Amino acid sequence: MKFLRFFYKIEREMSLVKDEFAFIQSITPAYTFRKELIQGIGDDAALYHIESEWDEIACTDTMVEGIHFKKSTLSPFQTGRKALAVNISDIAAMGGIPMFYLVSISVPQTGWSSKQLKEIYKGIKEIGDLYEMDMIGGDTVSTRGDLHIAITVIGKVEKGRKLLRSNAKAGDVVFLTGPVGGSAAGLSSLLKGEGSDGAYVQFHQEPHPRVKQGRILAKGGYRISLNDVSDGIASESHEIAEASDVSIVLNQDAIPAPEGFEAYSSFQRLEWMLNGGEDYELIGTVAEDDWANVVELFQEHQESIYKIGHVEDKGTSVWMSYKDQKFKLDKKGYNHFSSKE
Amino acid sequence: MKFLRFFYKIEREMSLVKDEFAFIQSITPAYTFRKELIQGIGDDAALYHIESEWDEIACTDTMVEGIHFKKSTLSPFQTGRKALAVNISDIAAMGGIPMFYLVSISVPQTGWSSKQLKEIYKGIKEIGDLYEMDMIGGDTVSTRGDLHIAITVIGKVEKGRKLLRSNAKAGDVVFLTGPVGGSAAGLSSLLKGEGSDGAYVQFHQEPHPRVKQGRILAKGGYRISLNDVSDGIASESHEIAEASDVSIVLNQDAIPAPEGFEAYSSFQRLEWMLNGGEDYELIGTVAEDDWANVVELFQEHQESIYKIGHVEDKGTSVWMSYKDQKFKLDKKGYNHFSSKE
Repeated sequence: MKFLRFFYKIEREMSLVKDEFAFIQSITPAYTFRKELIQGIGDDAALYHIESEWDEIACTDTMVEGIHFKKSTLSPFQTGRKALAVNISDIAAMGGIPMFYLVSISVPQTGWSSKQLKEIYKGIKEIGDLYEMDMIGGDTVSTRGDLHIAITVIGKVEKGRKLLRSNAKAGDVVFLTGPVGGSAAGLSSLLKGEGSDGAYVQFHQEPHPRVKQGRILAKGGYRISLNDVSDGIASESHEIAEASDVSIVLNQDAIPAPEGFEAYSSFQRLEWMLNGGEDYELIGTVAEDDWANVVELFQEHQESIYKIGHVEDKGTSVWMSYKDQKFKLDKKGYNHFSSKE
Repeated sequence: MKFLRFFYKIEREMSLVKDEFAFIQSITPAYTFRKELIQGIGDDAALYHIESEWDEIACTDTMVEGIHFKKSTLSPFQTGRKALAVNISDIAAMGGIPMFYLVSISVPQTGWSSKQLKEIYKGIKEIGDLYEMDMIGGDTVSTRGDLHIAITVIGKVEKGRKLLRSNAKAGDVVFLTGPVGGSAAGLSSLLKGEGSDGAYVQFHQEPHPRVKQGRILAKGGYRISLNDVSDGIASESHEIAEASDVSIVLNQDAIPAPEGFEAYSSFQRLEWMLNGGEDYELIGTVAEDDWANVVELFQEHQESIYKIGHVEDKGTSVWMSYKDQKFKLDKKGYNHFSSKE
């Protein structure tokens, strides 16, 4: 069991954790949610049981201080919350129910307080609890460098449902579950030092994975290709086009923007919307004949879904149509601090 | 899918990867082993299906440069191999079959070459292939600090088999699957600059998880408590004693040492054997009445197992017996560089 070993390590390595026992207590789950769980934290590994009517889903994602976040862009609570949220979003993009998570945190020997470390775990727990997930393992180690959080999430989806990016076909409708560009606009505002009051910062700091929307799509039973918007819709569209060997045409006027975005120049707005990333909406395709049914399902569940383009047969590229013009979109994506500085 | 995004990141962040495409090809698995796998690397998350006669096992462990290893103690190949091996060992300690792994690597912006990075993945793949495991996800990011490898492993074990550390009962035999202390002796030799020719370094650099032994114990169907020796047998015994609310008495003369260990002082020898850790043998307990059967099973499979003590009812402590003396063992463990320097 990693957590005992980890506590052990804390005693020796982590001078920042003054009251080891209180720290352990503060992060050990007092309750569990999932009936599938047999043995959570407390042994060499976790044990669980999943019935045969489900397939399982696993993904992992790492956030590194100075590369994916800074203390000036995310609070410790938001850092923890987002590190789990981005993994939940990958489960959502497979139409799944998130169940379990394992957390590896490397804590710098200086610059972070015990209180901040607890805040990270609080942020993780807040969104984990929201989805009734259990933390089933982890490791907290010391590092001479920057803070790292690597989280793995395990989820499940009805057997045989495969919402893969390779499912798109010519003639499909391209859809999106909500506005994009807000996260990049918020980050820009944070980097200008406008703090948490800046416009759109919530999009960047506290993204909402679209689990409910993914579940509607999985349960609908249609042929769906699906991605979460972690790297911007241009990049995500390229991934679907390449995996499915099709072309995707996005309709510029149909892509939903956050409220008030028209105040920005069209260049700035499009750059954020197409290449900003970290919006964590879902983008995908469905047959034209099924589109009306999908819209109806979303209306029943009071969730939004937008038709933003269509799928074509020729090549494996991505195009933007605007009035009677059409231009090719590069596969850009997600800018890290390191490429900006 | 993390790997596409990751490759994407490499282009921008990782100047060390000169030929991005060749690097991608070098680490993308060309084949898969597990029939349970539906969709491996190539989407937002991996998909797999496990039949109902199995429970599942998940664990995670992180290795950080400067804390858990140095370039002078492990080659890049050995670093990758060991990062996966220690996780496979946790699956072994639950009696399980390792199936899948997810790899997060943070690569320093300086000090590591593209060749070394490939060597890390080669080391991971060597031991993964040995156990017919599939890499189903991962993330490779850049960091301003030290190299980090966080690996999560998913395995399975026959439904209802719980080889938990809470299973020990008074009267049980305490067993160990092989000699301990070799890893600590090897590390000591490496830190003295004796290089790969030093005594016992193989124990430290290329540990062998005891999957086969764990499987014998799981399939035997006996009540077994089990831990892998990551933190030294004193610490592992404490974990079993605390989880089971029993006391454990180890018999000093019965604990197997690596060949040639008698050349060291008895103090040095005992320190390595009890508190060294990272030997990755299995330690556990089984009812006295079942012991002869367990020994027979191990003989049939040509594997070794040693009776090294017994379980008592009173207290939750760990004792060492030597001739007619008995002394209490502290819960020490595993020394990291940071506490030695």
